Amino acid sequence: MSNALLKELYDVLLEDFDDSLNRSGVSGTRFASRLSALAKIGLTEENGSYRIGYSLEEKEAKELVAAWMKEAGLQVRIDYAGNVFGRLAGKQDQLPSILSGSHVDSVPNGGHFDGPLGVLAALEVVEAWKETGYQPEIPYEVVIFSDEEGARFNGGLTGSRAVVGDIDMEKQRKLLDLNGDDFTTVIENYGLSAESFPAAFREPSTIKAYIEVHIEQGKVLEKANVPVGIVTGIAGPLWLKMSFIGEAGHAGNTPMIGRKDALVAAGEFIAALPLLPATLSDSAVATIGKVEVHPNGVNVIPGQVDLYLDIRDIYTDTVDQLVALVIEKAKEITEKYEVSFDYKQTLKVNPFLVKEELLETLTEAVEKEGISPVYLPSGAGHDAMILGKYVPSAMIFARSKNGISHNPLEWTTLSDCLHAVHVLKHTIETLNETK
Amino acid sequence: MSNALLKELYDVLLEDFDDSLNRSGVSGTRFASRLSALAKIGLTEENGSYRIGYSLEEKEAKELVAAWMKEAGLQVRIDYAGNVFGRLAGKQDQLPSILSGSHVDSVPNGGHFDGPLGVLAALEVVEAWKETGYQPEIPYEVVIFSDEEGARFNGGLTGSRAVVGDIDMEKQRKLLDLNGDDFTTVIENYGLSAESFPAAFREPSTIKAYIEVHIEQGKVLEKANVPVGIVTGIAGPLWLKMSFIGEAGHAGNTPMIGRKDALVAAGEFIAALPLLPATLSDSAVATIGKVEVHPNGVNVIPGQVDLYLDIRDIYTDTVDQLVALVIEKAKEITEKYEVSFDYKQTLKVNPFLVKEELLETLTEAVEKEGISPVYLPSGAGHDAMILGKYVPSAMIFARSKNGISHNPLEWTTLSDCLHAVHVLKHTIETLNETK
Repeated sequence: MSNALLKELYDVLLEDFDDSLNRSGVSGTRFASRLSALAKIGLTEENGSYRIGYSLEEKEAKELVAAWMKEAGLQVRIDYAGNVFGRLAGKQDQLPSILSGSHVDSVPNGGHFDGPLGVLAALEVVEAWKETGYQPEIPYEVVIFSDEEGARFNGGLTGSRAVVGDIDMEKQRKLLDLNGDDFTTVIENYGLSAESFPAAFREPSTIKAYIEVHIEQGKVLEKANVPVGIVTGIAGPLWLKMSFIGEAGHAGNTPMIGRKDALVAAGEFIAALPLLPATLSDSAVATIGKVEVHPNGVNVIPGQVDLYLDIRDIYTDTVDQLVALVIEKAKEITEKYEVSFDYKQTLKVNPFLVKEELLETLTEAVEKEGISPVYLPSGAGHDAMILGKYVPSAMIFARSKNGISHNPLEWTTLSDCLHAVHVLKHTIETLNETK
Repeated sequence: MSNALLKELYDVLLEDFDDSLNRSGVSGTRFASRLSALAKIGLTEENGSYRIGYSLEEKEAKELVAAWMKEAGLQVRIDYAGNVFGRLAGKQDQLPSILSGSHVDSVPNGGHFDGPLGVLAALEVVEAWKETGYQPEIPYEVVIFSDEEGARFNGGLTGSRAVVGDIDMEKQRKLLDLNGDDFTTVIENYGLSAESFPAAFREPSTIKAYIEVHIEQGKVLEKANVPVGIVTGIAGPLWLKMSFIGEAGHAGNTPMIGRKDALVAAGEFIAALPLLPATLSDSAVATIGKVEVHPNGVNVIPGQVDLYLDIRDIYTDTVDQLVALVIEKAKEITEKYEVSFDYKQTLKVNPFLVKEELLETLTEAVEKEGISPVYLPSGAGHDAMILGKYVPSAMIFARSKNGISHNPLEWTTLSDCLHAVHVLKHTIETLNETK
C-alpha cells in the first residue's frame, strides 16, 4: 500500500509539471522520484510523514540521501551530531565552503516537503553541475541537519546548534522524549554519544555562506502569485504570560456596577492587540493563542485571566518596542477597569536578519528566472536562523498550497520546487564569483 | 497543612460568636465543627473549596453528613440521582414531609458556606429537637441535593431537577465534563446509572413544603445591618454557549492582515457585553464566566472560542430582550471580523415567587428572633426554585461578608449562621402546626 501511495505521489507531482524547467542540467523527474522515495520512509496511514529527530526513520532518510550524494560524486561525512555533509571540491579547495541544505526529520504525521525540499534542491544543484560540466570555484557542501523540528524533545534545531556550538549539554542531557527516554539514551540508540556530541562544532570561518530552500508554510507567495520568495529575516518568537487580576464573584448576585471582572478587561485587551503591530512594522505579528480563565465556572465572575502572547518580528528593536506597547496598552485598560495586571516573559529567541548583500544576490537570481522578487519574513524558526548568527545566511521560500504545513496535506508543486532549485543554483554560482 | 487551616476556620468562626444563640438545643460549637469538617473535603491551596458535582469530594461530603444524620437518629436514604434524605418520623408519620436542606457541591475554588450552611442548618434543627425532646407532628427530612452549582456539566440543579422530574435524559446524557467524560460515564464512576437516574423522581404530594437556608451572596443584608433576610423570589439563570468560529493558523507565518482570529472577535464581544444589561433593566446582569479556546496553543491562532454566558433578571420579559440584544451584538461583531458564530441555550430557569402565606410564616419566625424583617430577591438560582414549581417553597438568607461568594473569601459569621438556624426552626415548627 505504501508503494501505491508512493507511486501516486510521483505521478501527482508530474501531473502539471512545467517541462521548460528541465534545463541547465536540472531534472524534474529525478527530483520527483527522490522526493517520492524519501516520502516512503515513515509514511503514515494518513499519507503523512513520521520521521522524528534521531529516529530510525530519520536515519534511513539520511542514508538514502547520502547514497545519492556518493553517486553524484560528493565526499560524504557524518559528524558527531549525526549531521550529514556531502562535499564537492572547488577549484580553490582550501577556501571556505558554501553550504546548502535543510533537514529530513518531520513532525509526527507531517508533510513531505518541509525539510526534504531544501536537501534535494541543494543536491539537484550538484546533479545539474555534473551534467553541464561545471566545477565551482570554491567548495560546495550539501547538508542534512539532525532533529530540526524538535518533535522529539520539545527543543529542535539540534543539529545546526551543535555545528555552531550553541548547545548547553547539561540541559540537553536532561531532555526526555515522548517515551520518557533521555537524550543520552536516544543518541546512543542512534549510534552517537552525548560525550562526543559537542565535537560536532565546526569553525564558522570554514563556511562562506549558508543558503536554505524551504517551503513557506504561509500564504504570502500564493497571494502574490509567485513560485518563490526571498526571506528577509526570521522572526524569533517572544512569549509573554499576562495575568489580569480582578475579583471573583457570583454572576447572579453581583450588580453590574462595581464589578471587577478580569475577563472584561482581558477582552478589551484581546481586541486591541491586533492593532498594535502595524504601528511599528509591517512584518510584526502578535497573537494570543492560549487563554486560561480562573475559576472558569459559568456562573462565576472571573477573578483572574491569563493570556499567553506570541510576539514576532525580524527586527530586534521592533520586537522590544512592540512588547513595550503591549504592556502600556494592558496598563491603560486595566487602570480603566480598576483591575491589576502582571506579566512575565517565558521565551525569547532573537530574530535574524538577512544581510543586504545576500538579499541583492537572491534578487538577481530570482529576476534571472523571470520572477518578480517578493520579500517576506519567516515567522517560523529554521536552521538558517542558527547558522545566521555566525555565518552569512539566507533563505529561499517555495510557495505552499493553502499555506498548510506540518500536515499530510502540505503541498508544493514540482514546478515551484524546480523554480526554487534554479534560484538556488543561480545564487550559489554568483556567490562563487564574489569575494 | 489542611488540618491547620481547618483548625483555623473553627477558631475564627468561634472568635466573635454570640453565646446567647446557644439556646433551645442549638449549638454553635457543633455547627462550627461540622462546617470545618466539611471544609476539609476538597480544600484548595488558596483555602477554598473544590467539590464539583458528582466528584469524589462531593460524595465524601455527602457521606460525612449522612453519618451525622444517622447519629442524630435520622433514617438515611440515597436516591437514584445521589440526593441524600435523612428522615425524622412525625407523630402522624403518613402525612407529607417538610423538607429542608441545600447542597454540598461547590464551584472550583469556591467558599465553605454556599450549600453547607443550608444542609447543616436543617440538620441542626434535628439536633436541637433531640436535645429538647421535641417530636414533630409530621415527618421532617434533611436533604442534600446533588450537583447544584453545575460547575461540572454547565448544567446545575441536577439533583433537585431529578426529584421533580425536570430532567431531559436525552440532553443530559450528551453533556460532557471538563475532561471530556460524558454524563453517563461520570455517573457510573460515581456509582449511579443514567438508566435509573429518572427514578429519582418523587411524587410532589409527599412534600408539604421545602425551606432552604442559604448565604445571600450579595450585600443587601449587610447594608440593612440584619443577620438574616426573607427571600421574595428567585431570578432564574439563562445560560448560553456562544461559539466564535474563525480559522486556525501559525502565529508566526500568518500576517496580521487577513487573519480570522476567533479570539479577537470574542474579545470585542466580551468587552461589549457588560454595557448591554443596563439598557433594559437595573436588576439585569450578564456574565461570561467560562471560556474555552481551541486549540489553545501559544503559537496557534485560535480557530474557535466558546464563551459561556449567564444572563439573569427577576422579570421574564427583560431576560428574553437581553438575550436578543446579546445575539444581535455577537452577529454585528462576527460580521465585522468575518468570522462566524453559533449559539445554543443550555439552561433556562423561570423566575420563582414565594407564596404570600409562606412569607407570613417566615416574617413571624424572623420577628420571634427580635430581627426586623428584610425582604429581598435572589439573583442566584437555588434548589428551592426548582422545588418551588411543584411544592410550596421558601428561602432564608444569611448575611454575606462583603457580598463575596464562589470564592475562598466567602464568609458568614457563626452568629449569623445560628440566627438562620433559629429562624428555620421556628418556621418548621409553625408549619408543623398549620394545615
